[in-house]
Amino acid sequence: MAAPVEEGGHAGKRGFDWILDLPSGAAAIAMRVKEFGEEDPRRVIHSFKVGLALTMVSLFYYFKPLYDGFGVNAIWAVLTVVVVFEFSVGATLGKGLNRMAATFGAGGLGIGAHHLASLSGPTGEPILIAAFVFIIAAVVTFTRFFPKVKARYDYGFNIFILTFSLVSVSGYRDSQVWTMAHERLSTIMVGSSTAVIVCVVVYPVWIGEELHNLVVTNIENLGEFLLGFGDQCFNAESNNNGKALGEYHKSVLTSKSNEENMANLARWEPGHGRFRLQHPWKQYLKIGTLTRECAYKVDALSSYLNPHVQPVDEMGNRVEVACRELSTECGRALKELALATRKMKRPKPADAMVASSSAAADNLKLVLDTSKWERQRLVEVVPIAALAAVLLEIAETTERIADAVVELASKAHFKSTDSAVSPEQPSPPPAAALPVSSGGA
Amino acid sequence: MAAPVEEGGHAGKRGFDWILDLPSGAAAIAMRVKEFGEEDPRRVIHSFKVGLALTMVSLFYYFKPLYDGFGVNAIWAVLTVVVVFEFSVGATLGKGLNRMAATFGAGGLGIGAHHLASLSGPTGEPILIAAFVFIIAAVVTFTRFFPKVKARYDYGFNIFILTFSLVSVSGYRDSQVWTMAHERLSTIMVGSSTAVIVCVVVYPVWIGEELHNLVVTNIENLGEFLLGFGDQCFNAESNNNGKALGEYHKSVLTSKSNEENMANLARWEPGHGRFRLQHPWKQYLKIGTLTRECAYKVDALSSYLNPHVQPVDEMGNRVEVACRELSTECGRALKELALATRKMKRPKPADAMVASSSAAADNLKLVLDTSKWERQRLVEVVPIAALAAVLLEIAETTERIADAVVELASKAHFKSTDSAVSPEQPSPPPAAALPVSSGGA
Repeated sequence: MAAPVEEGGHAGKRGFDWILDLPSGAAAIAMRVKEFGEEDPRRVIHSFKVGLALTMVSLFYYFKPLYDGFGVNAIWAVLTVVVVFEFSVGATLGKGLNRMAATFGAGGLGIGAHHLASLSGPTGEPILIAAFVFIIAAVVTFTRFFPKVKARYDYGFNIFILTFSLVSVSGYRDSQVWTMAHERLSTIMVGSSTAVIVCVVVYPVWIGEELHNLVVTNIENLGEFLLGFGDQCFNAESNNNGKALGEYHKSVLTSKSNEENMANLARWEPGHGRFRLQHPWKQYLKIGTLTRECAYKVDALSSYLNPHVQPVDEMGNRVEVACRELSTECGRALKELALATRKMKRPKPADAMVASSSAAADNLKLVLDTSKWERQRLVEVVPIAALAAVLLEIAETTERIADAVVELASKAHFKSTDSAVSPEQPSPPPAAALPVSSGGA
Repeated sequence: MAAPVEEGGHAGKRGFDWILDLPSGAAAIAMRVKEFGEEDPRRVIHSFKVGLALTMVSLFYYFKPLYDGFGVNAIWAVLTVVVVFEFSVGATLGKGLNRMAATFGAGGLGIGAHHLASLSGPTGEPILIAAFVFIIAAVVTFTRFFPKVKARYDYGFNIFILTFSLVSVSGYRDSQVWTMAHERLSTIMVGSSTAVIVCVVVYPVWIGEELHNLVVTNIENLGEFLLGFGDQCFNAESNNNGKALGEYHKSVLTSKSNEENMANLARWEPGHGRFRLQHPWKQYLKIGTLTRECAYKVDALSSYLNPHVQPVDEMGNRVEVACRELSTECGRALKELALATRKMKRPKPADAMVASSSAAADNLKLVLDTSKWERQRLVEVVPIAALAAVLLEIAETTERIADAVVELASKAHFKSTDSAVSPEQPSPPPAAALPVSSGGA
């Protein structure tokens, strides 16, 4: 067994081996755990929160009053905390509400089924109960396949089957079926409430904010790529110190399921801070989709980073200059859009935001339209031509992202800023005066 | 409330509304449910399987022997079936094994904690128990954040906290803590085994097979696109009847998390049919990643479908012919690779599989290399040049996919076919004799 000391790299990648290596390098493990915790301190906070909530509920169990009131079923409260407590408020609240609603509904139905079955005498009762359990389990399981149900109510439907079976089957042995259903509901409410309260009160992680930040960061990353692209593509000497340029867009390419999951959970969250209850989460998915479309095109660009494109003549140089300009302006526009969204400020109207990049796109088109390549071998023309084509598509997608971001700002009632032009004013400001200036060619 | 009759479209999209609309159109709902079930009949079968397993375990509960042996804790078996039973064998087995192992480990630890705490007298006991619960909950919750743990053991670690709390906290009231831990383990084993047995015996859904088919279908879809692309891109009259060409690659773009999830679950599955226990599931992820890279490039191509590219002169026609040829040959190669993988047959050596597409790529390069555009406006050159550049990249990615597929065939010991050339033979057969002929330019 290799000591983990000798193995560098990301702590997360060795999650399970870490356990296997326990005896061989405790110090190294401690360091790795520390590293992993420091990477995102909320992981540590969350772990303490779970411990806190669970200990609180366990204390309920110790105290005679609760125990005497609920009997052994008080243990359901402990169980509920363990299964309901999630990292984000949205997930915890979603699970808690699902669990409570399902327990209430299925408990009632279970009591009904029990009564109906008990009318049919000692022989018929188990047969009827079994039939009910079979039918409810099959129907509810099938319902869980519907995508909308799966996205938001999957857990509730699972608990529905569970509680129904529990109440109706237990009822056969325990005539106090009402007491049982009631105790189960009460203890689950105690457990869910504890989990939700601890989750919200102690350093809450709002999944809606996470989604907001993820979408903004994705736009920002594409902007960063485009700002650095011109230099690195045409200049063999340039070196991007820090994050390799080709890495910026990679995580954007595959963020779809993550974003959808977050949007589903965010809808459970109450209003908090600058996010209202009816925050337009779906608009984030729209922006996310456009950002991903842009990332696919950026991925096509990234294949021109290595080897560098070598413009072959004066004509090629003109195209190159126009391409660099367009890449930079698109990058600036995206970064400005990201900045305004991050601060939740109403950006300028969409056409003002992309005025510079549109102008640069028009310029590139003009260069392409008015220039002729004389006796150039096609193989030398192809890279720069392909580059120009992709950049023009990126400029177009940037405009669509700007539209979507402005739509979000209006739907979410972002505050307008002093520097922003009011949407009613038709003429955009001169394109040159863009406030963002980080990086760039 | 609108009657669902008037609303066409996909049943899945209206999952929850379906419930709200219950009273208003029972016939329409029945039809929609039928449609949804027919879309994938395994959904219906799965629902019946859950009902069956749950009823079986409930019957255990009715029978005196089991009830007398386990007491009220027999209800844990029912509960286990509900939470462990999943759609695929891999998911069910993974959850079942996680649940059993965690219950065993945490039960033992809980008994130890209970004994240790009881030594400290009636005042110290609840304090010590609370401290143990807090520590275990915090440490295990933190461990769950490690990606490798999260991917395969998340459920087990959750159950670990649950069982530990249950045993140690219950122990405070119930001196028969050994009995309780033992009963919990036994009932959970009964429940898990029932779920796993029903899941495997009645029309099993193997998630490994699903992954295999998904990866193959993705390659096939890209092949289908490339086969149809030449016609539709350069020929304004052509019409693809059936699936719109631009849709083929869309699902490939976002399949990453799905594939990773499936690969994690597939590793729980025992050998079955042509899949052995140590089937190289990771190789599917590698192929999936390459397929997605190819899909990004195909996405770039798809923007040339509308408006159609119009070659401007004789030179442009030469490039066009070479592009069509390359697209078709890449499409053929991908479809052949998909076909061999679907049948789990050892394909020809990688270079033989892509001989035609490599030749077509060389031809396109030659055309680009030997041709000059005379006095052509750049704007007319750009689309066809960009197209050629993307197609050359696709040809390269196709070769890498072929390598990965051949590697899979060797790792997974696919059988060699009569028509296939043995890998030892160095010279590939003439490229023209490709067996696949569906679609094409």
